[in-house]
Amino acid sequence: VEVVVVGAGFGGLNVVRALRDADVNVTLVDANNFHLFQPLLYQVATAGLDADDIAYPVRGTLRRQRNARFRLGRVTGVDFAARAVTLRDGAELHYDVLVLAIGAVSASFGVPGVEEHALELKSLADAEQVRGHLLSRIERASADGADGSANDGALDVVIVGGGPTGVELAGGIRELYDKVLARDFPDLDVRSATITLVEATDRVLGTFAPKLSASAAKELTKRRVALELGTGVARVVPGGVELADGRTIRGGTVIWAAGVRANPLAAELGLDIGRGGRVVVDPDLRVAGHPDVFVIGDVAASPSGDGAALPQVAQVAIQGGRHVGRQIRRILAGEPTERFRYKDKGSMATIGRNAAVAQLPGGLTLTGPIGWIAWLGLHLLYLIGFRNRANVLVNWAWNYLTYDRGARLLGEDVGEPDALDAAR
Amino acid sequence: VEVVVVGAGFGGLNVVRALRDADVNVTLVDANNFHLFQPLLYQVATAGLDADDIAYPVRGTLRRQRNARFRLGRVTGVDFAARAVTLRDGAELHYDVLVLAIGAVSASFGVPGVEEHALELKSLADAEQVRGHLLSRIERASADGADGSANDGALDVVIVGGGPTGVELAGGIRELYDKVLARDFPDLDVRSATITLVEATDRVLGTFAPKLSASAAKELTKRRVALELGTGVARVVPGGVELADGRTIRGGTVIWAAGVRANPLAAELGLDIGRGGRVVVDPDLRVAGHPDVFVIGDVAASPSGDGAALPQVAQVAIQGGRHVGRQIRRILAGEPTERFRYKDKGSMATIGRNAAVAQLPGGLTLTGPIGWIAWLGLHLLYLIGFRNRANVLVNWAWNYLTYDRGARLLGEDVGEPDALDAAR
Repeated sequence: VEVVVVGAGFGGLNVVRALRDADVNVTLVDANNFHLFQPLLYQVATAGLDADDIAYPVRGTLRRQRNARFRLGRVTGVDFAARAVTLRDGAELHYDVLVLAIGAVSASFGVPGVEEHALELKSLADAEQVRGHLLSRIERASADGADGSANDGALDVVIVGGGPTGVELAGGIRELYDKVLARDFPDLDVRSATITLVEATDRVLGTFAPKLSASAAKELTKRRVALELGTGVARVVPGGVELADGRTIRGGTVIWAAGVRANPLAAELGLDIGRGGRVVVDPDLRVAGHPDVFVIGDVAASPSGDGAALPQVAQVAIQGGRHVGRQIRRILAGEPTERFRYKDKGSMATIGRNAAVAQLPGGLTLTGPIGWIAWLGLHLLYLIGFRNRANVLVNWAWNYLTYDRGARLLGEDVGEPDALDAAR
Repeated sequence: VEVVVVGAGFGGLNVVRALRDADVNVTLVDANNFHLFQPLLYQVATAGLDADDIAYPVRGTLRRQRNARFRLGRVTGVDFAARAVTLRDGAELHYDVLVLAIGAVSASFGVPGVEEHALELKSLADAEQVRGHLLSRIERASADGADGSANDGALDVVIVGGGPTGVELAGGIRELYDKVLARDFPDLDVRSATITLVEATDRVLGTFAPKLSASAAKELTKRRVALELGTGVARVVPGGVELADGRTIRGGTVIWAAGVRANPLAAELGLDIGRGGRVVVDPDLRVAGHPDVFVIGDVAASPSGDGAALPQVAQVAIQGGRHVGRQIRRILAGEPTERFRYKDKGSMATIGRNAAVAQLPGGLTLTGPIGWIAWLGLHLLYLIGFRNRANVLVNWAWNYLTYDRGARLLGEDVGEPDALDAAR
């Protein structure tokens, strides 16, 4: 029995692992040869961690699993009748069971200027681009300062979207500015740069308990992150954003973290698509009419008990992956499939050094230093099994003790401010 | 007094450090915002270390030196009469004393096909390109194997140049293949891939004592690196090299490590140029006719006692940098400059795990595990002061214990074999 799993994120990897020792051949397909630990992407963007701290070669994770192999390639189509996946290089992979775990992409929601003038934070390349942009802006400002011109807002940052990504970016950029770049650029008044977090609803971390939103807002304000709540963005323009209420917020860097939509490949495949471009799935995570196709993670509208779709978070993908592994075993054994039951393990977001909020099952909440230690421990725990944990620990310990960040490298060729200004 | 130092390599950084507490303003200019620890570049190319393990932000090294500042930019010209350095972004930097430490680039020596079909190993981007090329080739071979075609030499590697870079690359690639990729790609016969080291003279490591060359050759042969000594390369072609004696050696990867020439900017500046494009300098490392210009490191033909130019190695740049720092202080104090006296501290090359050769002052030599431990210790010592040492230590310890290499990530967008094949 051939199982093809598309996508080496949390969902896909967990399907493969759950099929260890099952009587199947598993082929895992991804356009990248690494698994990305997305929750720490903002750390790469803010120079706290280097790319290879949060990316792990897929083949390394599959080494001890004899029935699994990896295929590097981008899926461009699926022939459901012939049970074959087509790759961009022309190859076809036959499947008996297909699992689509192809994730989500950044969504502009049709706001003009997002694609042209804002940065995103979904891929490793995005994170390195954000880092390179922040560093190039300040190198440019430093170079211009030598000629006598003032800071024209080039260092100001606008982040759109008050979810965990936006909150963590805002806190991380403030630390990068205050603790690292202020010392690297003593000739610039780095601390006066503004960081603004724009959120269309009336609170940050809208999926958390209100008191955690309040705690996060307080911590952000303490870190001089300006909050613009209850107002949408009308458009992104060069050098800033225009709000729905007519005001303009200046920013040499605009990061769009307002939300995601399902991988557009899902719609191209002709599957039944719901809100946010997500694939409608049955309670067992199969696609209606395609009993040999499972869809999990951010690309699926996984049904929750109350009819709404489960959130697009790592835990849904991880548990969905394990569920699908079990269901494939049941199908092989001739047993009926079970419905997917998601167990909420809580969620967390960090605002910065010694400050994080955690919402745990049963209404328990953590804030401040205790929340931060919980956040740190949990993330290290999840990196276990990935060899990078030792490096991550070294990096974090170093950052904590010294307020330094070693990863603030500009890529070669984009290293020159004139080259980078031309590029954006 | 304004001192402008161009180049943040070993030479330039040591000039700046030697001027700490001197009554000068130092501006260090480089097109990259990081200092690169070049001796470990081959480790990045062979996935043993990640880029940020061997690159350190220049501003971090200058933090504690009040009289030094950094300017990101590429120098395009020098007006010696007006004492001004021109940058590509149009800015001009005035100097009272100029130090050129602009290094060397890879030299093809006019051999046809080098630029089109061979990879180099001089910059961080080069190293990442070599790594990406090796990994993409094997991903491509694995993908093709699924369709039944055999290994057509795509995994074979030809390295041209038997100096330390070529030797270290050959040993490093063999370890990557045998210890890492053979486990990552159990469907491929990775161990059968050939690695050939081509050297025009009759021995590898020609600048070392003959018995060390013999030891290195023996260790390389033990590691199944084929040595082609005493034969030049007539041309590099797609898929291999043609030797001067008419034979062709197949290789899906060809790496050109046959030598370097001085940064071509030196010639463009109109300075007196000698062999290898190096700037002719007086015994005190100043340029004749330009008493306010010092040239050091790989770009300079630093005179040795016997009239020949000193080798283009890190120690010459480091000691040259310190010397120039001292001479600038002497000039400020109204004292005459001194001649540069290079102290040979020996040289080392590593062939792989437990095998390195070291040539120390006084004719002392080390080989085998003792040489390797000496090599390891020395390189860790030199990374001290750079925060990355902790990570490097973790990476090396991990590699040693597990034969694993975490840095084997393909960049996004080049991650797909079809994309990469199109690119080369």
